[in-house]
Amino acid sequence: MLKTNQNYKLLNTSYLFPEIKRKVALFSSEFPNITLFNLGEGDTTQPLASSVSKSMIKKIEDMSSDKAYMGYSDPLGLATLKSQIASNYNNSYAKNFDLSEIFISDGAKTDLFNIQAIFQSGMKVALQNPSYPAYIDSFVINGNANDLVYLVGNAENKFVPSLPTQRVDLMYLCFPNNPTGASASYVQLKQFVDYALKKRTLIIYDSVYSWFIEDPRYPRSIYEIPGADECAIEIQSLSKIASFPSLRLGWTIIPQKLLAGSFKRREINNIWKRRQQTAFNGASIVSQAGAISALSDKGLKECDKNIKYYLKNTKLIKNCCEKIGLECFGGTNSPYVWCKTPNKMTSWEFFDFLLKEANTICAPGVGFGSLGEGFFRLSGFAKNKEVLNATQHITKAFLLLK
Amino acid sequence: MLKTNQNYKLLNTSYLFPEIKRKVALFSSEFPNITLFNLGEGDTTQPLASSVSKSMIKKIEDMSSDKAYMGYSDPLGLATLKSQIASNYNNSYAKNFDLSEIFISDGAKTDLFNIQAIFQSGMKVALQNPSYPAYIDSFVINGNANDLVYLVGNAENKFVPSLPTQRVDLMYLCFPNNPTGASASYVQLKQFVDYALKKRTLIIYDSVYSWFIEDPRYPRSIYEIPGADECAIEIQSLSKIASFPSLRLGWTIIPQKLLAGSFKRREINNIWKRRQQTAFNGASIVSQAGAISALSDKGLKECDKNIKYYLKNTKLIKNCCEKIGLECFGGTNSPYVWCKTPNKMTSWEFFDFLLKEANTICAPGVGFGSLGEGFFRLSGFAKNKEVLNATQHITKAFLLLK
Repeated sequence: MLKTNQNYKLLNTSYLFPEIKRKVALFSSEFPNITLFNLGEGDTTQPLASSVSKSMIKKIEDMSSDKAYMGYSDPLGLATLKSQIASNYNNSYAKNFDLSEIFISDGAKTDLFNIQAIFQSGMKVALQNPSYPAYIDSFVINGNANDLVYLVGNAENKFVPSLPTQRVDLMYLCFPNNPTGASASYVQLKQFVDYALKKRTLIIYDSVYSWFIEDPRYPRSIYEIPGADECAIEIQSLSKIASFPSLRLGWTIIPQKLLAGSFKRREINNIWKRRQQTAFNGASIVSQAGAISALSDKGLKECDKNIKYYLKNTKLIKNCCEKIGLECFGGTNSPYVWCKTPNKMTSWEFFDFLLKEANTICAPGVGFGSLGEGFFRLSGFAKNKEVLNATQHITKAFLLLK
Repeated sequence: MLKTNQNYKLLNTSYLFPEIKRKVALFSSEFPNITLFNLGEGDTTQPLASSVSKSMIKKIEDMSSDKAYMGYSDPLGLATLKSQIASNYNNSYAKNFDLSEIFISDGAKTDLFNIQAIFQSGMKVALQNPSYPAYIDSFVINGNANDLVYLVGNAENKFVPSLPTQRVDLMYLCFPNNPTGASASYVQLKQFVDYALKKRTLIIYDSVYSWFIEDPRYPRSIYEIPGADECAIEIQSLSKIASFPSLRLGWTIIPQKLLAGSFKRREINNIWKRRQQTAFNGASIVSQAGAISALSDKGLKECDKNIKYYLKNTKLIKNCCEKIGLECFGGTNSPYVWCKTPNKMTSWEFFDFLLKEANTICAPGVGFGSLGEGFFRLSGFAKNKEVLNATQHITKAFLLLK
């Protein structure tokens, strides 16, 4: 009999961002003349770099000509793009990745979800709490949420958790972290890698915010840690650096040397390859053409202006929050500022307060996990003018709290 | 313990198209000076229509400007594109689909695979034999291949199978069919719909070749059959009509009225929506912009020239094959000609013969399922000149067989 995959029944119906949207729509319908400042979303606002859009337009022109047109491209990605990515890693981190270890994706979200399905469900999975809410949903749907191990992030450890006290099969790590903005140092990340190597745990490393790291004390890739290519898959995206959220382009690195659980070397790489050839037909070739440009020396320089822009906003937000006496985390090497709510408000109480009194949208911490309760996240992705307006309004609103 | 999803161990290692590629590479390394004619692939060769590429370039220009840039777009697709699709269906087939029933995808292949995962595995699945080989792999990986029911296609029924004699949970149907080129008439398709309604079977209807239907006796969408919106999901793509294989754009229709297995109305639609919001972030917005153009009246007219071009090629191929005395199927309302091999050759024997003697690449029938043995597929997607050359060479090669 055709029945629902039972895992879907275990999903919570509400989801952080739709709930924020609902509350904002309600407020706007009540006060249609009030302009709101959106520091709630992690969504880019800077346009495409000109070298990137030029390459994409060139690709479309080629595809419109009889001579240069091409039909299906390799589901695993264009060799030129994979070479560009491999050489960026190999030059920066003295690695020796070859093209078979790089899989071009249509963004990090898809692979963070799909990678679980190549393993038997019922895995013991560790994840940071608080963390990106789509992780939990992906564990629930893939049947891996029965035995979750939370890696506790709190003010004391500055949201870089300790190792799990028990063995886990799979560990999702995200640094710089969403939502807390925490970065892991070399020493801290090495502890996770050493744990994984010892326990044959597979690390899924979400490094989509690594572009924001300015301080050389923090690794930008897990592969900067010796041994990581034997225990970690890294998932990366062009969304933040190249303004690609709606263009959909990322990549996943599955080293041939990977050893985890009962797997021999090469096996995980081979299974993922077969999965992608069967269930995927590649990222848009126009996005891939843009990515080749974005990842060149010239493109990276151009795109880095976006990062600098967002970091400047984030600094403004952090300064504002500290000035009004909030306990703040993140805000450097990250586009996110993570603050404790004042007066012991819950996350959603503070959301309502900020919306009403500062006309500013934040992301309530509890939406990122139980340990996010009593915190909220502000993002530096908005336009600079919006950030300036928001900080002025926030400062004024806090006078009400005195 | 981290273990492989056992289903992956059940996959065959060889896959039709890689195997063809391997054999062709071997031949070319032995005879580097021989030009080969590729009638083996279902891959488009006509460039993008100019109205389509104009819209895509315009979208990139917008994304490069501070004012018109946008970050994340709806994972379920742009409303404008969904409206365009809904109105095409509603105008052509007197349906009343609303936007919630249309899910924009990055092409048919992904959804044909992923849709199975919202159901409990271990379903009884029916599929045509011969059929598109990725179906079987998708059943194996999703744990639905233990109890396959083959819908027999053969010369007697002109590759439009009879109904299954037992109840099945899920039925994959593809008309015009790949590889046989067979189209189902209204009466034939109605039999499948009536069966599904009676048995609460879910039909997954792969209509990606419907653009080739010229004869009004054949339905272009399963929704032309009364009741189909209560038992069928239709999966469609712009690859063939708009030359989009590497641009990745398709859609899946999941009617709210759908009733199947133990599901109530709206349920399947809701679960898929939640799945896509969690595991997908939308098709590239540039491809979506191109799709809006391609599906407008003007765009459809322009793109239809591609279809006419491929159909003209297919006719040439069919005429050639019939002239040399082969038993042929398909070749009208379809880009594929499906022929019986001469002299009782196996599919791969004939492949080798055609490669060596006519320097032409075909797709061996057995690669599409056991019942494809003794057949081969030729495709009209190549350039016209290549098709003309191939048919001349095939005709000459057949003199050797007399």
